[in-house]
Amino acid sequence: MEVIHSIADLRSRIKDYRRKNDQSVGFVPTMGYLHEGHASLLRKARAQSGLVVLSIFVNPLQFGPGEDFERYPRNTERDLQLAEAAGVDLVFMPSVSEMYPSPTRTTVSVTGLTSRLCGASRPGHFDGVATVVSKLFHIVQPDQAFFGLKDAQQVAVIEQMVQDLNLGIEIVPCPILREADGLAMSSRNVYLSEEERKEALVLSQSLQKAKAFVESHTAFTPQELESLVSQHIATSSLAIIDYVEVLAYPTLEPFKNSHHTHSIIIALAVKFGKTRLIDNLILQVGK
Amino acid sequence: MEVIHSIADLRSRIKDYRRKNDQSVGFVPTMGYLHEGHASLLRKARAQSGLVVLSIFVNPLQFGPGEDFERYPRNTERDLQLAEAAGVDLVFMPSVSEMYPSPTRTTVSVTGLTSRLCGASRPGHFDGVATVVSKLFHIVQPDQAFFGLKDAQQVAVIEQMVQDLNLGIEIVPCPILREADGLAMSSRNVYLSEEERKEALVLSQSLQKAKAFVESHTAFTPQELESLVSQHIATSSLAIIDYVEVLAYPTLEPFKNSHHTHSIIIALAVKFGKTRLIDNLILQVGK
Repeated sequence: MEVIHSIADLRSRIKDYRRKNDQSVGFVPTMGYLHEGHASLLRKARAQSGLVVLSIFVNPLQFGPGEDFERYPRNTERDLQLAEAAGVDLVFMPSVSEMYPSPTRTTVSVTGLTSRLCGASRPGHFDGVATVVSKLFHIVQPDQAFFGLKDAQQVAVIEQMVQDLNLGIEIVPCPILREADGLAMSSRNVYLSEEERKEALVLSQSLQKAKAFVESHTAFTPQELESLVSQHIATSSLAIIDYVEVLAYPTLEPFKNSHHTHSIIIALAVKFGKTRLIDNLILQVGK
Repeated sequence: MEVIHSIADLRSRIKDYRRKNDQSVGFVPTMGYLHEGHASLLRKARAQSGLVVLSIFVNPLQFGPGEDFERYPRNTERDLQLAEAAGVDLVFMPSVSEMYPSPTRTTVSVTGLTSRLCGASRPGHFDGVATVVSKLFHIVQPDQAFFGLKDAQQVAVIEQMVQDLNLGIEIVPCPILREADGLAMSSRNVYLSEEERKEALVLSQSLQKAKAFVESHTAFTPQELESLVSQHIATSSLAIIDYVEVLAYPTLEPFKNSHHTHSIIIALAVKFGKTRLIDNLILQVGK
Protein backbone atom coordinates (compact mmCIF):
# COMPACT_ATOMS: atom_id res chain seq x y z
CA MET A 1 0.00 0.00 0.00
CA GLU A 2 1.28 3.40 -1.00
CA VAL A 3 0.36 6.74 0.61
CA ILE A 4 0.29 9.66 -1.80
CA HIS A 5 -0.13 13.33 -0.97
CA SER A 6 0.18 15.10 -4.32
CA ILE A 7 -2.36 15.16 -7.13
CA ALA A 8 0.37 14.89 -9.77
CA ASP A 9 1.86 11.79 -8.11
CA LEU A 10 -1.53 10.11 -7.86
CA ARG A 11 -2.35 10.88 -11.49
CA SER A 12 0.93 9.44 -12.72
CA ARG A 13 0.63 6.38 -10.46
CA ILE A 14 -2.87 5.61 -11.83
CA LYS A 15 -1.88 6.37 -15.42
CA ASP A 16 0.98 3.94 -14.99
CA TYR A 17 -1.40 1.27 -13.68
CA ARG A 18 -3.78 1.81 -16.59
CA ARG A 19 -0.94 1.45 -19.10
CA LYS A 20 0.12 -1.88 -17.69
CA ASN A 21 -3.25 -3.36 -16.73
CA ASP A 22 -6.64 -3.85 -18.27
CA GLN A 23 -8.41 -4.13 -14.93
CA SER A 24 -10.70 -1.55 -13.43
CA VAL A 25 -9.91 1.18 -10.91
CA GLY A 26 -12.18 1.29 -7.85
CA PHE A 27 -12.41 4.38 -5.69
CA VAL A 28 -13.64 4.97 -2.13
CA PRO A 29 -13.70 8.68 -1.20
CA THR A 30 -13.85 9.30 2.58
CA MET A 31 -13.19 11.94 5.20
CA GLY A 32 -11.12 9.45 7.22
CA TYR A 33 -11.60 8.31 10.83
CA LEU A 34 -12.51 5.03 9.21
CA HIS A 35 -14.83 2.46 10.77
CA GLU A 36 -16.27 -0.89 9.73
CA GLY A 37 -18.70 0.87 7.40
CA HIS A 38 -15.79 2.25 5.39
CA ALA A 39 -14.03 -1.13 5.61
CA SER A 40 -17.07 -2.76 3.98
CA LEU A 41 -16.79 -0.30 1.06
CA LEU A 42 -13.08 -1.03 0.71
CA ARG A 43 -13.63 -4.78 0.77
CA LYS A 44 -16.30 -4.45 -1.90
CA ALA A 45 -13.90 -2.36 -4.01
CA ARG A 46 -11.16 -4.96 -3.42
CA ALA A 47 -13.48 -7.72 -4.67
CA GLN A 48 -14.59 -5.79 -7.80
CA SER A 49 -11.60 -3.73 -8.89
CA GLY A 50 -8.03 -4.31 -9.97
CA LEU A 51 -6.68 -1.18 -8.26
CA VAL A 52 -8.29 0.11 -5.06
CA VAL A 53 -7.87 3.82 -4.34
CA LEU A 54 -8.95 5.31 -1.01
CA SER A 55 -9.02 9.06 -0.46
CA ILE A 56 -8.95 10.63 2.98
CA PHE A 57 -9.80 14.32 2.85
CA VAL A 58 -11.86 16.39 5.25
CA ASN A 59 -13.35 18.80 2.73
CA PRO A 60 -13.87 22.27 4.22
CA LEU A 61 -16.28 23.18 1.38
CA GLN A 62 -19.01 20.86 2.65
CA PHE A 63 -19.05 22.20 6.21
CA GLY A 64 -21.17 25.22 7.04
CA PRO A 65 -20.21 27.98 9.47
CA GLY A 66 -20.50 26.65 13.03
CA GLU A 67 -20.32 23.03 11.88
CA ASP A 68 -17.62 20.61 13.01
CA PHE A 69 -14.92 21.05 10.33
CA GLU A 70 -12.21 22.03 12.84
CA ARG A 71 -12.98 19.28 15.34
CA TYR A 72 -13.88 16.55 12.85
CA PRO A 73 -12.09 13.46 14.25
CA ARG A 74 -8.81 12.40 12.65
CA ASN A 75 -6.60 9.34 13.25
CA THR A 76 -4.29 8.73 10.31
CA GLU A 77 -2.36 5.86 11.85
CA ARG A 78 -5.48 3.81 12.56
CA ASP A 79 -6.96 4.73 9.15
CA LEU A 80 -3.87 3.39 7.38
CA GLN A 81 -3.96 0.15 9.35
CA LEU A 82 -7.61 -0.38 8.47
CA ALA A 83 -6.94 0.47 4.82
CA GLU A 84 -4.02 -1.94 4.61
CA ALA A 85 -6.08 -4.71 6.19
CA ALA A 86 -8.89 -4.09 3.67
CA GLY A 87 -6.46 -4.46 0.76
CA VAL A 88 -6.21 -0.85 -0.41
CA ASP A 89 -3.50 -0.17 -3.02
CA LEU A 90 -3.26 3.63 -2.99
CA VAL A 91 -4.23 6.04 -0.22
CA PHE A 92 -4.63 9.62 -1.40
CA MET A 93 -4.26 12.10 1.48
CA PRO A 94 -4.04 15.62 0.04
CA SER A 95 -3.72 18.75 2.16
CA VAL A 96 -6.38 21.45 1.91
CA SER A 97 -3.94 23.63 -0.06
CA GLU A 98 -3.25 20.77 -2.48
CA MET A 99 -6.98 20.46 -3.20
CA TYR A 100 -7.71 24.21 -3.06
CA PRO A 101 -4.48 26.07 -3.97
CA SER A 102 -6.57 29.21 -4.45
CA PRO A 103 -10.19 29.90 -3.50
CA THR A 104 -12.30 27.85 -5.89
CA ARG A 105 -14.55 29.84 -8.21
CA THR A 106 -16.18 26.78 -9.71
CA THR A 107 -19.13 25.03 -8.10
CA VAL A 108 -20.98 21.91 -9.15
CA SER A 109 -24.60 22.08 -7.98
CA VAL A 110 -27.36 19.49 -8.18
CA THR A 111 -30.84 20.97 -7.80
CA GLY A 112 -34.07 19.25 -6.81
CA LEU A 113 -32.55 16.34 -4.90
CA THR A 114 -30.79 18.74 -2.57
CA SER A 115 -33.77 20.87 -1.49
CA ARG A 116 -34.91 18.57 1.35
CA LEU A 117 -33.38 16.56 4.23
CA CYS A 118 -29.73 17.49 4.85
CA GLY A 119 -29.84 19.87 1.89
CA ALA A 120 -32.40 21.98 3.74
CA SER A 121 -30.63 21.75 7.13
CA ARG A 122 -27.15 22.34 5.76
CA PRO A 123 -27.29 25.01 3.02
CA GLY A 124 -24.39 24.65 0.58
CA HIS A 125 -23.45 21.21 1.94
CA PHE A 126 -24.26 19.29 -1.23
CA ASP A 127 -22.61 21.89 -3.46
CA GLY A 128 -19.46 21.24 -1.41
CA VAL A 129 -19.93 17.48 -1.75
CA ALA A 130 -20.64 17.53 -5.50
CA THR A 131 -17.72 19.88 -6.15
CA VAL A 132 -15.13 17.90 -4.19
CA VAL A 133 -16.37 14.55 -5.50
CA SER A 134 -16.15 15.83 -9.07
CA LYS A 135 -12.58 17.02 -8.36
CA LEU A 136 -11.66 13.63 -6.90
CA PHE A 137 -13.31 11.82 -9.80
CA HIS A 138 -11.27 13.91 -12.25
CA ILE A 139 -8.06 13.14 -10.40
CA VAL A 140 -8.64 9.39 -9.90
CA GLN A 141 -10.76 8.69 -13.02
CA PRO A 142 -12.15 5.50 -11.52
CA ASP A 143 -14.35 2.92 -13.21
CA GLN A 144 -16.38 2.37 -10.04
CA ALA A 145 -16.87 4.47 -6.91
CA PHE A 146 -18.28 3.07 -3.68
CA PHE A 147 -20.52 5.07 -1.35
CA GLY A 148 -22.31 4.11 1.87
CA LEU A 149 -26.09 4.41 2.00
CA LYS A 150 -25.99 6.01 5.44
CA ASP A 151 -25.60 9.16 3.34
CA ALA A 152 -28.45 8.09 1.04
CA GLN A 153 -29.10 11.64 -0.14
CA GLN A 154 -25.42 12.00 -1.01
CA VAL A 155 -25.61 8.80 -3.06
CA ALA A 156 -28.65 10.14 -4.94
CA VAL A 157 -26.88 13.47 -5.57
CA ILE A 158 -23.70 11.81 -6.83
CA GLU A 159 -25.65 9.43 -9.08
CA GLN A 160 -27.53 12.40 -10.57
CA MET A 161 -24.28 14.33 -11.10
CA VAL A 162 -22.59 11.36 -12.76
CA GLN A 163 -25.55 10.93 -15.11
CA ASP A 164 -25.98 14.63 -15.92
CA LEU A 165 -22.28 15.33 -16.46
CA ASN A 166 -21.54 12.07 -18.32
CA LEU A 167 -18.85 11.10 -15.87
CA GLY A 168 -19.01 7.50 -17.04
CA ILE A 169 -18.38 6.13 -13.53
CA GLU A 170 -20.42 3.33 -11.97
CA ILE A 171 -21.69 4.38 -8.55
CA VAL A 172 -21.96 1.38 -6.20
CA PRO A 173 -24.24 2.09 -3.22
CA CYS A 174 -23.39 -0.06 -0.17
CA PRO A 175 -25.63 -0.94 2.81
CA ILE A 176 -25.43 0.85 6.16
CA LEU A 177 -23.31 -0.95 8.75
CA ARG A 178 -24.55 -0.89 12.35
CA GLU A 179 -23.11 -1.53 15.78
CA ALA A 180 -24.39 -4.69 17.51
CA ASP A 181 -27.10 -2.65 19.26
CA GLY A 182 -28.30 -1.03 16.02
CA LEU A 183 -26.60 2.40 16.01
CA ALA A 184 -25.53 3.27 12.46
CA MET A 185 -21.75 3.44 12.25
CA SER A 186 -20.43 6.99 11.88
CA SER A 187 -17.16 8.78 12.48
CA ARG A 188 -19.18 11.26 14.53
CA ASN A 189 -20.33 8.61 17.05
CA VAL A 190 -17.06 9.27 18.88
CA TYR A 191 -18.44 12.67 19.92
CA LEU A 192 -21.23 11.07 22.00
CA SER A 193 -21.12 10.96 25.78
CA GLU A 194 -21.94 7.62 27.39
CA GLU A 195 -25.49 8.74 28.07
CA GLU A 196 -25.97 10.19 24.59
CA ARG A 197 -24.60 7.00 23.05
CA LYS A 198 -27.21 5.00 24.95
CA GLU A 199 -30.10 7.29 24.04
CA ALA A 200 -29.02 7.46 20.38
CA LEU A 201 -30.44 3.94 20.04
CA VAL A 202 -33.87 5.53 19.61
CA LEU A 203 -32.85 6.33 16.02
CA SER A 204 -32.42 2.79 14.73
CA GLN A 205 -35.29 1.62 16.96
CA SER A 206 -37.63 4.20 15.44
CA LEU A 207 -36.70 3.00 11.95
CA GLN A 208 -37.42 -0.60 12.96
CA LYS A 209 -40.82 0.46 14.30
CA ALA A 210 -41.52 2.19 11.00
CA LYS A 211 -40.50 -0.94 9.14
CA ALA A 212 -42.88 -3.09 11.20
CA PHE A 213 -45.64 -0.56 10.54
CA VAL A 214 -45.03 -0.62 6.78
CA GLU A 215 -45.01 -4.42 6.77
CA SER A 216 -48.33 -4.61 8.62
CA HIS A 217 -50.24 -1.93 6.71
CA THR A 218 -51.44 -2.07 3.12
CA ALA A 219 -51.53 1.69 2.80
CA PHE A 220 -50.17 4.63 4.76
CA THR A 221 -49.27 8.28 4.37
CA PRO A 222 -45.78 9.65 4.89
CA GLN A 223 -47.19 11.72 7.77
CA GLU A 224 -48.23 8.58 9.65
CA LEU A 225 -44.72 7.17 9.42
CA GLU A 226 -43.12 10.50 10.29
CA SER A 227 -45.25 10.80 13.45
CA LEU A 228 -44.49 7.27 14.51
CA VAL A 229 -40.73 7.84 14.10
CA SER A 230 -40.75 11.29 15.72
CA GLN A 231 -42.77 10.04 18.67
CA HIS A 232 -40.35 7.25 19.36
CA ILE A 233 -37.35 9.59 19.09
CA ALA A 234 -39.08 11.96 21.51
CA THR A 235 -38.93 9.25 24.18
CA SER A 236 -35.26 10.27 24.53
CA SER A 237 -34.99 13.45 26.58
CA LEU A 238 -31.63 14.27 24.95
CA ALA A 239 -32.78 13.97 21.33
CA ILE A 240 -33.42 17.17 19.39
CA ILE A 241 -34.98 16.38 16.02
CA ASP A 242 -33.57 18.23 13.02
CA TYR A 243 -35.82 16.41 10.55
CA VAL A 244 -37.80 13.20 10.16
CA GLU A 245 -38.96 12.83 6.58
CA VAL A 246 -40.49 10.10 4.47
CA LEU A 247 -39.98 10.56 0.73
CA ALA A 248 -40.06 8.56 -2.47
CA TYR A 249 -36.69 7.02 -3.23
CA PRO A 250 -34.42 7.71 -5.13
CA THR A 251 -36.22 10.83 -6.39
CA LEU A 252 -36.45 12.27 -2.84
CA GLU A 253 -39.82 13.75 -3.80
CA PRO A 254 -42.82 13.87 -1.43
CA PHE A 255 -45.69 11.47 -2.10
CA LYS A 256 -49.28 11.47 -0.82
CA ASN A 257 -49.88 7.84 -0.08
CA SER A 258 -47.87 4.61 -0.25
CA HIS A 259 -49.95 3.61 -3.28
CA HIS A 260 -48.18 6.36 -5.21
CA THR A 261 -44.63 5.01 -4.99
CA HIS A 262 -42.61 1.81 -5.07
CA SER A 263 -39.70 2.64 -2.88
CA ILE A 264 -39.48 5.01 0.08
CA ILE A 265 -36.81 6.40 2.34
CA ILE A 266 -37.43 7.14 6.00
CA ALA A 267 -34.68 9.63 6.77
CA LEU A 268 -33.81 11.41 9.98
CA ALA A 269 -31.28 13.80 11.46
CA VAL A 270 -31.22 14.23 15.22
CA LYS A 271 -28.91 16.13 17.55
CA PHE A 272 -27.63 14.75 20.83
CA GLY A 273 -25.84 17.64 22.50
CA LYS A 274 -23.58 19.10 19.82
CA THR A 275 -23.55 15.90 17.80
CA ARG A 276 -25.79 15.62 14.77
CA LEU A 277 -26.50 12.02 13.71
CA ILE A 278 -28.28 10.82 10.59
CA ASP A 279 -29.85 7.48 9.80
CA ASN A 280 -32.29 6.11 7.26
CA LEU A 281 -34.10 3.08 5.98
CA ILE A 282 -35.03 2.38 2.38
CA LEU A 283 -38.07 0.14 1.91
CA GLN A 284 -40.04 -1.31 -0.96
CA VAL A 285 -43.75 -0.60 -0.63
CA GLY A 286 -46.94 -1.26 -2.59
CA LYS A 287 -49.57 -3.98 -2.99
CA MET B 1 -12.85 10.68 -40.83
CA GLU B 2 -15.65 9.10 -38.89
CA VAL B 3 -18.92 10.78 -37.86
CA ILE B 4 -20.31 9.58 -34.54
CA HIS B 5 -23.68 10.42 -33.02
CA SER B 6 -23.78 8.40 -29.80
CA ILE B 7 -21.85 9.06 -26.61
CA ALA B 8 -21.23 5.35 -26.05
CA ASP B 9 -19.77 4.93 -29.55
CA LEU B 10 -17.48 7.91 -29.13
CA ARG B 11 -16.27 6.69 -25.73
CA SER B 12 -15.46 3.25 -27.07
CA ARG B 13 -13.77 4.66 -30.18
CA ILE B 14 -11.50 6.90 -28.05
CA LYS B 15 -10.84 4.15 -25.50
CA ASP B 16 -9.80 1.94 -28.35
CA TYR B 17 -7.44 4.63 -29.67
CA ARG B 18 -5.93 5.10 -26.21
CA ARG B 19 -5.34 1.38 -25.86
CA LYS B 20 -3.43 1.17 -29.11
CA ASN B 21 -1.63 4.54 -29.08
CA ASP B 22 0.45 6.57 -26.72
CA GLN B 23 -0.29 9.85 -28.50
CA SER B 24 -2.47 12.63 -27.19
CA VAL B 25 -6.13 13.31 -27.92
CA GLY B 26 -6.93 16.86 -29.06
CA PHE B 27 -10.44 18.24 -28.88
CA VAL B 28 -12.18 21.18 -30.59
CA PRO B 29 -15.71 21.75 -29.27
CA THR B 30 -17.88 23.89 -31.59
CA MET B 31 -21.47 24.75 -32.38
CA GLY B 32 -20.89 24.05 -36.07
CA TYR B 33 -21.36 26.36 -39.06
CA LEU B 34 -17.62 26.24 -39.23
CA HIS B 35 -15.46 29.00 -40.68
CA GLU B 36 -11.75 29.64 -41.07
CA GLY B 37 -11.50 30.47 -37.35
CA HIS B 38 -12.60 26.94 -36.50
CA ALA B 39 -10.36 25.55 -39.22
CA SER B 40 -7.38 27.23 -37.57
CA LEU B 41 -8.23 25.47 -34.28
CA LEU B 42 -8.53 22.14 -36.08
CA ARG B 43 -5.21 22.62 -37.86
CA LYS B 44 -3.54 23.45 -34.56
CA ALA B 45 -5.05 20.32 -33.01
CA ARG B 46 -3.90 18.29 -36.03
CA ALA B 47 -0.34 19.56 -35.54
CA GLN B 48 -0.26 18.87 -31.79
CA SER B 49 -2.39 15.76 -31.23
CA GLY B 50 -2.44 12.15 -32.36
CA LEU B 51 -6.23 11.96 -32.53
CA VAL B 52 -8.28 15.03 -33.44
CA VAL B 53 -11.88 15.09 -32.19
CA LEU B 54 -14.31 17.79 -33.30
CA SER B 55 -17.72 18.17 -31.68
CA ILE B 56 -20.60 19.97 -33.34
CA PHE B 57 -23.42 20.65 -30.93
CA VAL B 58 -25.66 23.70 -30.65
CA ASN B 59 -26.15 23.65 -26.90
CA PRO B 60 -29.61 24.91 -25.89
CA LEU B 61 -28.43 25.45 -22.30
CA GLN B 62 -26.24 28.41 -23.21
CA PHE B 63 -28.95 30.34 -25.06
CA GLY B 64 -31.27 32.61 -23.10
CA PRO B 65 -34.98 33.11 -23.82
CA GLY B 66 -35.35 35.21 -26.97
CA GLU B 67 -31.82 34.43 -28.13
CA ASP B 68 -31.05 32.73 -31.44
CA PHE B 69 -31.01 29.03 -30.47
CA GLU B 70 -33.72 28.06 -32.95
CA ARG B 71 -32.31 30.01 -35.86
CA TYR B 72 -28.60 29.42 -35.14
CA PRO B 73 -27.13 28.62 -38.58
CA ARG B 74 -26.46 24.98 -39.44
CA ASN B 75 -24.77 23.40 -42.47
CA THR B 76 -23.62 19.89 -41.70
CA GLU B 77 -22.42 19.04 -45.19
CA ARG B 78 -20.11 22.03 -45.42
CA ASP B 79 -18.94 21.48 -41.82
CA LEU B 80 -17.91 17.92 -42.62
CA GLN B 81 -16.01 19.01 -45.74
CA LEU B 82 -14.11 21.63 -43.76
CA ALA B 83 -13.40 19.12 -40.97
CA GLU B 84 -12.10 16.52 -43.38
CA ALA B 85 -9.85 19.07 -45.10
CA ALA B 86 -8.45 20.12 -41.71
CA GLY B 87 -7.52 16.52 -40.88
CA VAL B 88 -10.15 15.71 -38.23
CA ASP B 89 -10.34 12.04 -37.19
CA LEU B 90 -13.64 11.91 -35.32
CA VAL B 91 -16.64 14.23 -35.59
CA PHE B 92 -19.04 13.97 -32.67
CA MET B 93 -22.52 15.21 -33.59
CA PRO B 94 -24.93 14.30 -30.79
CA SER B 95 -28.63 15.18 -30.80
CA VAL B 96 -30.04 17.34 -28.00
CA SER B 97 -31.70 14.23 -26.53
CA GLU B 98 -28.41 12.34 -26.60
CA MET B 99 -26.75 15.11 -24.57
CA TYR B 100 -29.78 15.83 -22.36
CA PRO B 101 -31.88 12.64 -22.17
CA SER B 102 -33.72 14.18 -19.22
CA PRO B 103 -33.69 17.77 -17.92
CA THR B 104 -30.28 18.26 -16.34
CA ARG B 105 -30.29 18.94 -12.61
CA THR B 106 -26.56 19.50 -12.43
CA THR B 107 -24.94 22.83 -13.20
CA VAL B 108 -21.30 23.83 -13.28
CA SER B 109 -20.91 27.52 -12.41
CA VAL B 110 -17.84 29.71 -12.41
CA THR B 111 -18.26 32.87 -10.35
CA GLY B 112 -16.30 36.12 -10.56
CA LEU B 113 -15.14 35.83 -14.14
CA THR B 114 -18.73 35.60 -15.33
CA SER B 115 -20.15 38.70 -13.67
CA ARG B 116 -19.11 41.14 -16.43
CA LEU B 117 -19.15 41.38 -20.24
CA CYS B 118 -21.26 38.62 -21.83
CA GLY B 119 -21.92 37.17 -18.37
CA ALA B 120 -23.80 40.35 -17.46
CA SER B 121 -25.62 40.64 -20.81
CA ARG B 122 -26.52 36.97 -21.06
CA PRO B 123 -27.54 35.66 -17.61
CA GLY B 124 -26.97 31.90 -17.32
CA HIS B 125 -24.94 31.78 -20.54
CA PHE B 126 -21.65 30.77 -18.92
CA ASP B 127 -23.35 28.21 -16.66
CA GLY B 128 -24.61 26.64 -19.88
CA VAL B 129 -21.15 26.82 -21.42
CA ALA B 130 -19.31 25.43 -18.37
CA THR B 131 -21.86 22.64 -17.97
CA VAL B 132 -21.80 21.47 -21.59
CA VAL B 133 -18.01 21.78 -21.87
CA SER B 134 -17.57 19.71 -18.71
CA LYS B 135 -19.92 17.09 -20.18
CA LEU B 136 -17.97 17.04 -23.45
CA PHE B 137 -14.66 16.89 -21.57
CA HIS B 138 -15.93 13.88 -19.61
CA ILE B 139 -17.03 12.14 -22.79
CA VAL B 140 -13.91 12.85 -24.87
CA GLN B 141 -11.31 12.99 -22.05
CA PRO B 142 -8.88 14.92 -24.21
CA ASP B 143 -5.31 15.87 -23.37
CA GLN B 144 -5.66 19.27 -25.05
CA ALA B 145 -8.68 21.35 -25.97
CA PHE B 146 -8.54 24.26 -28.41
CA PHE B 147 -10.64 27.42 -28.04
CA GLY B 148 -10.74 30.62 -30.07
CA LEU B 149 -9.96 33.90 -28.33
CA LYS B 150 -12.88 35.64 -29.99
CA ASP B 151 -14.72 34.24 -26.98
CA ALA B 152 -11.98 35.43 -24.62
CA GLN B 153 -14.25 35.39 -21.60
CA GLN B 154 -15.25 31.82 -22.43
CA VAL B 155 -11.57 30.86 -22.56
CA ALA B 156 -10.98 32.44 -19.14
CA VAL B 157 -14.04 30.65 -17.70
CA ILE B 158 -12.99 27.27 -19.11
CA GLU B 159 -9.41 27.70 -17.87
CA GLN B 160 -10.71 28.52 -14.38
CA MET B 161 -13.04 25.51 -14.43
CA VAL B 162 -10.28 23.18 -15.55
CA GLN B 163 -8.02 24.43 -12.78
CA ASP B 164 -10.67 24.39 -10.03
CA LEU B 165 -12.10 20.98 -10.91
CA ASN B 166 -8.71 19.34 -11.62
CA LEU B 167 -9.76 18.35 -15.11
CA GLY B 168 -6.13 17.84 -16.12
CA ILE B 169 -6.72 19.14 -19.64
CA GLU B 170 -4.46 21.67 -21.34
CA ILE B 171 -6.50 24.58 -22.70
CA VAL B 172 -4.92 26.02 -25.84
CA PRO B 173 -6.22 29.54 -26.61
CA CYS B 174 -5.98 30.41 -30.32
CA PRO B 175 -5.91 33.88 -31.94
CA ILE B 176 -8.98 35.50 -33.51
CA LEU B 177 -9.22 35.08 -37.27
CA ARG B 178 -10.52 38.02 -39.28
CA GLU B 179 -11.92 38.61 -42.74
CA ALA B 180 -9.64 40.58 -45.10
CA ASP B 181 -11.36 43.82 -44.08
CA GLY B 182 -10.96 43.15 -40.34
CA LEU B 183 -14.34 41.73 -39.26
CA ALA B 184 -13.82 38.95 -36.72
CA MET B 185 -14.97 35.65 -38.16
CA SER B 186 -18.19 34.37 -36.61
CA SER B 187 -20.93 31.92 -37.54
CA ARG B 188 -23.34 34.76 -36.80
CA ASN B 189 -21.89 37.04 -39.53
CA VAL B 190 -24.22 35.25 -41.94
CA TYR B 191 -27.16 37.00 -40.27
CA LEU B 192 -25.90 40.44 -41.36
CA SER B 193 -27.53 42.36 -44.20
CA GLU B 194 -25.16 43.87 -46.76
CA GLU B 195 -25.41 47.24 -45.08
CA GLU B 196 -24.94 45.83 -41.57
CA ARG B 197 -21.95 43.82 -42.78
CA LYS B 198 -20.34 47.03 -44.05
CA GLU B 199 -21.04 49.01 -40.90
CA ALA B 200 -19.86 46.16 -38.64
CA LEU B 201 -16.33 47.14 -39.65
CA VAL B 202 -16.47 49.84 -36.98
CA LEU B 203 -15.85 47.08 -34.42
CA SER B 204 -12.40 45.99 -35.54
CA GLN B 205 -11.56 49.58 -36.52
CA SER B 206 -12.40 50.80 -33.02
CA LEU B 207 -10.11 48.15 -31.54
CA GLN B 208 -7.30 49.23 -33.85
CA LYS B 209 -7.81 52.84 -32.74
CA ALA B 210 -7.59 51.70 -29.13
CA LYS B 211 -4.41 49.79 -29.91
CA ALA B 212 -2.81 52.86 -31.48
CA PHE B 213 -3.85 54.90 -28.44
CA VAL B 214 -2.30 52.38 -26.03
CA GLU B 215 0.92 52.32 -28.03
CA SER B 216 1.23 56.10 -28.01
CA HIS B 217 0.37 56.71 -24.35
CA THR B 218 2.43 55.79 -21.31
CA ALA B 219 -0.60 55.77 -19.02
CA PHE B 220 -4.36 55.73 -19.49
CA THR B 221 -7.54 54.81 -17.68
CA PRO B 222 -9.97 52.14 -18.87
CA GLN B 223 -12.59 54.89 -19.24
CA GLU B 224 -10.44 56.75 -21.78
CA LEU B 225 -10.17 53.64 -23.93
CA GLU B 226 -13.84 52.77 -23.51
CA SER B 227 -14.88 56.26 -24.68
CA LEU B 228 -12.58 56.14 -27.65
CA VAL B 229 -13.97 52.75 -28.73
CA SER B 230 -17.61 53.66 -28.07
CA GLN B 231 -17.28 56.94 -29.96
CA HIS B 232 -15.92 55.19 -33.00
CA ILE B 233 -18.66 52.55 -32.90
CA ALA B 234 -21.24 55.34 -32.63
CA THR B 235 -20.18 56.57 -36.06
CA SER B 236 -22.29 53.69 -37.40
CA SER B 237 -25.96 54.57 -37.30
CA LEU B 238 -26.90 50.87 -37.18
CA ALA B 239 -24.72 49.91 -34.21
CA ILE B 240 -26.39 49.47 -30.83
CA ILE B 241 -23.75 48.99 -28.14
CA ASP B 242 -24.41 46.22 -25.61
CA TYR B 243 -21.10 46.80 -23.80
CA VAL B 244 -17.63 48.23 -24.34
CA GLU B 245 -15.39 47.32 -21.43
CA VAL B 246 -11.69 47.46 -20.69
CA LEU B 247 -10.59 45.04 -17.97
CA ALA B 248 -7.45 43.38 -16.69
CA TYR B 249 -6.78 40.09 -18.45
CA PRO B 250 -7.16 37.19 -17.72
CA THR B 251 -8.75 38.08 -14.36
CA LEU B 252 -11.47 40.20 -16.06
CA GLU B 253 -11.31 42.55 -13.07
CA PRO B 254 -11.60 46.34 -13.39
CA PHE B 255 -8.42 48.38 -12.90
CA LYS B 256 -7.96 52.09 -12.22
CA ASN B 257 -5.02 52.93 -14.41
CA SER B 258 -2.81 51.12 -16.90
CA HIS B 259 -0.01 51.24 -14.32
CA HIS B 260 -2.00 48.74 -12.25
CA THR B 261 -2.00 45.87 -14.70
CA HIS B 262 0.17 44.06 -17.24
CA SER B 263 -2.35 42.77 -19.68
CA ILE B 264 -5.74 44.19 -20.67
CA ILE B 265 -8.69 43.17 -22.75
CA ILE B 266 -10.76 45.64 -24.72
CA ALA B 267 -14.02 43.75 -25.17
CA LEU B 268 -17.20 44.73 -26.93
CA ALA B 269 -20.62 43.41 -27.86
CA VAL B 270 -22.67 45.35 -30.37
CA LYS B 271 -25.97 44.66 -32.06
CA PHE B 272 -26.65 45.29 -35.73
CA GLY B 273 -30.37 44.70 -36.19
CA LYS B 274 -31.08 41.38 -34.48
CA THR B 275 -27.47 40.23 -34.75
CA ARG B 276 -25.23 40.54 -31.71
CA LEU B 277 -21.52 40.52 -32.55
CA ILE B 278 -18.59 40.36 -30.15
CA ASP B 279 -14.95 41.25 -30.65
CA ASN B 280 -11.95 41.95 -28.46
CA LEU B 281 -8.27 42.76 -28.34
CA ILE B 282 -5.83 41.63 -25.69
CA LEU B 283 -2.83 43.91 -25.20
CA GLN B 284 0.25 44.02 -23.02
CA VAL B 285 0.57 47.37 -21.30
CA GLY B 286 3.15 49.14 -19.15
CA LYS B 287 6.87 48.65 -19.26
